[in-house]
Amino acid sequence: MNAVDLIIAKRDGGRLSDAQIDWFIRAYTDGEVADEQASALLMAILFRGMEPDELARWTAQMIASGTRTDLSSLSRPTVDKHSTGGVGDKLSLIICPLVAACGAAVPQAAGRGLGHTGGTLDKMETIPGWRSTLSPDEVLAVLADSGAVINAAGPDLAPADRKLYALRDITGTVESIPLIASSIMSKKIAEGTGALVLDVKVGSGAFMKDESRAHELAETMVGIGTAHDVRTVALLTQMDVPLGRTAGNALEVVEAVEVLSGGGPADVVELSLALTREMLGLVGLDGTDPADLLQDGRAMDAWDALVRAQGGDPTAELPRATEVEVVPAPATGTLSRLDALAVGVAAWRLGAGRARKEDDVSPIAGVTWHATVGDPVTEGQPLLELHLDDPAKLPEALEALEGAIEVSPDPVSPPPLILGRVD
Amino acid sequence: MNAVDLIIAKRDGGRLSDAQIDWFIRAYTDGEVADEQASALLMAILFRGMEPDELARWTAQMIASGTRTDLSSLSRPTVDKHSTGGVGDKLSLIICPLVAACGAAVPQAAGRGLGHTGGTLDKMETIPGWRSTLSPDEVLAVLADSGAVINAAGPDLAPADRKLYALRDITGTVESIPLIASSIMSKKIAEGTGALVLDVKVGSGAFMKDESRAHELAETMVGIGTAHDVRTVALLTQMDVPLGRTAGNALEVVEAVEVLSGGGPADVVELSLALTREMLGLVGLDGTDPADLLQDGRAMDAWDALVRAQGGDPTAELPRATEVEVVPAPATGTLSRLDALAVGVAAWRLGAGRARKEDDVSPIAGVTWHATVGDPVTEGQPLLELHLDDPAKLPEALEALEGAIEVSPDPVSPPPLILGRVD
Repeated sequence: MNAVDLIIAKRDGGRLSDAQIDWFIRAYTDGEVADEQASALLMAILFRGMEPDELARWTAQMIASGTRTDLSSLSRPTVDKHSTGGVGDKLSLIICPLVAACGAAVPQAAGRGLGHTGGTLDKMETIPGWRSTLSPDEVLAVLADSGAVINAAGPDLAPADRKLYALRDITGTVESIPLIASSIMSKKIAEGTGALVLDVKVGSGAFMKDESRAHELAETMVGIGTAHDVRTVALLTQMDVPLGRTAGNALEVVEAVEVLSGGGPADVVELSLALTREMLGLVGLDGTDPADLLQDGRAMDAWDALVRAQGGDPTAELPRATEVEVVPAPATGTLSRLDALAVGVAAWRLGAGRARKEDDVSPIAGVTWHATVGDPVTEGQPLLELHLDDPAKLPEALEALEGAIEVSPDPVSPPPLILGRVD
Repeated sequence: MNAVDLIIAKRDGGRLSDAQIDWFIRAYTDGEVADEQASALLMAILFRGMEPDELARWTAQMIASGTRTDLSSLSRPTVDKHSTGGVGDKLSLIICPLVAACGAAVPQAAGRGLGHTGGTLDKMETIPGWRSTLSPDEVLAVLADSGAVINAAGPDLAPADRKLYALRDITGTVESIPLIASSIMSKKIAEGTGALVLDVKVGSGAFMKDESRAHELAETMVGIGTAHDVRTVALLTQMDVPLGRTAGNALEVVEAVEVLSGGGPADVVELSLALTREMLGLVGLDGTDPADLLQDGRAMDAWDALVRAQGGDPTAELPRATEVEVVPAPATGTLSRLDALAVGVAAWRLGAGRARKEDDVSPIAGVTWHATVGDPVTEGQPLLELHLDDPAKLPEALEALEGAIEVSPDPVSPPPLILGRVD
C-alpha cells in the first residue's frame, strides 16, 4: 500500500477502497504515513468528498484506532446529544441530568471550547471539586447509579481523530463535511451510546453559516450513525442570536441551574425540551414529559447527583466577576439584532474562550444580556454586561461588539429556534 | 502572516497576494512553514489553479530563493531549450552544440531522468571524463569560448523548487499545471538565458497525455517567461512514438553524434532543426540554416568543443552492452504502433532509468528499434533490440512491451512530429 497512490485516487475523484482506508488510518495513527501526505489527502477529500459507505468505513477505522465502549451491561437505555457548537449553548448541562431523570443513561464524552464557542467541560469545571477524569469503571458505575456522566474523552477514544484533527487545524482542512462528520461521530460512537441526537447549529455564531451546508452535515452524520447501528436524529437550530442570556463559563452554569429549577430564559427551556424529547423518543421513554421534571425538582435532583458523582459540590458558590462593564441600549424600540458571533468573540476576548487548545480559560469572564431579539429596549438601559477578569481585555471585547446590536422602531419577531430535522 | 490563512484563501478559490507569496516561498524554503502546511497549499493550488500574474510572482520568488545568473557580459546572445521529457529524446545533445555553432550561447542547466523518461545528464555522463559540475565562473568561461554548456543545476538555482518538487513527488501534487510550469521556468529563468524554446511533449510517453493539457502548460510557461523578460516560444510535439531509434543513455549519445555528423534518423533531424530554428529566430540569428552545419562538420566541431570543455573525450569509445536480446516483428506489413511509454518503461526496467532520484542508472542498458511507425516490416525480422546490463531484468522489460507493437496490412502514415506552436 502506498500513500501517494491513495492521495492520487482521491484527488482524481475516486472512492478509496476499504483496504486503502483501513491501511491509511492505521498507518497514519502509527506514524508510518507522514503528516505532509496525510494533509494532502485531507485537502483532496475536502475537494472531492466521500461516498456514504466510504465515509462509514473511514469512521469505523477511526473508532477502531481505539476502543468502542461496551455499555450493554447497563439496565438503562443509553442516549447522548452533541452540539456542533454555539454561543451561550449550555444545553448539555440541562439535558444530561434531565434525560437521566427520565430513566435513560447519558454517557457524554465532552470537549473543551475553542475560539468563540464554549465547551461543556470548561463550564462544568467552574464547579468547585468537579472533575472530568473518571476512569472507564467509574463512568459505568455513575451511569448505572445516577444515569448521567460528562467526562473528558480518554486516550482510547478514537485516537486517530485526535491526530487528524490536530493536522486539519493547521492545514486549512477543518471545513470538510465528511471530515467534520467523521470526527464527531467517531467519538460519539466510540463512547458507547446506543442513540444520539445532534444539535446542528446554523448562523453567524455557528461553525456552519448557511443552512444548506448544515443540512448536508446533519444528513452525513445521521448516515454514519445509522451505519454503526446508533439511532441518530439531528435538529438544525438557529445560532444567529446567542442562546439564553449568558455566554461565559460560570455564568452559563448559573443559567443552566435556573432552567433545571424550573425557570430560566424561554429559548433555552424550549430547545432543551425539544432535544430531550427527541432523545427520549429514540429510547422509547417518550411517555414522560420532561417539562414536568423541570418543575417538580426531579431534574434538579439529577443535576445534584451528576455534580456529586464527579466530585463536585452543587451547593458551593460559583466564582463571579467583581468588575462588570455595562453596555447601554443605543435607542428605544425592539432589539432586532444581537449577533451571536460578536457576543461569542467578545466573551472569548474577555477570557472565557481559548485561541489554542493549550490555553487556560477564565471561569468568571463572559457576557450577559438583559434582552434578546424581539424584546423591547429603552435607550440608555443596561443591555449588555461584560464580566471582567482583567480590565485590559475590555477594549478588544468592546471592539468585537461593534455593529453587533441593532434596535428597530418597529416590532420584530425572534427567529425560530428549530429550522429543520433530519432522521 | 499565517500559513493557514494562505491555505484557506487558495482553497476557497482566491488569489494569493504578492505579500503572501513572497512570505510563503521564503518561509517554506527556510523551514518556517511545515511540510504538512505546504502540501495542503499545493493540493489546493492543484484544484484551484493560479492566475497568470499570481503565478509569475510565485515563480519570481522561487527564482529569488537563489540567484538569477547574470550572463550580460557575454558577447553572444543567450538561448536555451527545454523538453518536458520523452522517450528517446536526445535532442539537447544535438541542439546545444548546433545552436552554439550558429553563434548563440546555450547555458543549459540540465537534469537527470526519473521513471521512463531519460535525462540529459545521464546520457552525457556516459562519455568518459565528462562532468556536469562546472562552477559559475567555469560556465561563463565555456559559454564565452565554445558557446554551449550542459551543467547540473547548482545549489543556488531556485532552491525553493528543489524543496517543493521533493514534496510534490510524495504528496500527489506533481500534476498541477501552474506547479509544473513554475518548477520548469524558475530553473530556466534562474540559469540566466535571455530566450527559451520549450518542447512540450504530448502522448503516451509524455508527462502530458492529452493535447489540451499540453497546450495549457505551454501557454502557462510562455506567460511566465514573458513576464520575466525571457522571450519564450513553445512547440507541442508528439510522443506517442519514441524519437529516433534508441532509448538508453550511451545508445542515445551514439545516435546524437550520428545526427551531428550529418546522418541519423529523419524524425530526430527534423525536430532538432525545427527547435534550433525557433531558438535562432528568438535571438536574431535566423540568417543561418542549421541544416548546413550538420552537413559541413561545424556542428560536430561544436560537439567536440562542448565535450572537451567539460572534461570529456569525444574520441573515446562509449560503453556498450555485450548481451542483446532481439524481439522479432510479429507480422509482415507496416509498423502501425510502437508505444513510447512501453519502450520507455522497458528501457527503464533494463536499467537505463531510475525509480528514485538516489538510484544509479546503467550507461549501457536500453532499447533500440530497426523500424518506426510507417516503416515496412517483415515477419521475423529483428525489430527491437534490448541492451542488457543484467539478464535478470529481461523478463520485466519484455512484459512492459506487451501490446506495444502492432503491424498493419495497410499503409500507415507516421504521426506528425509538430502538433502546435505557442508564442
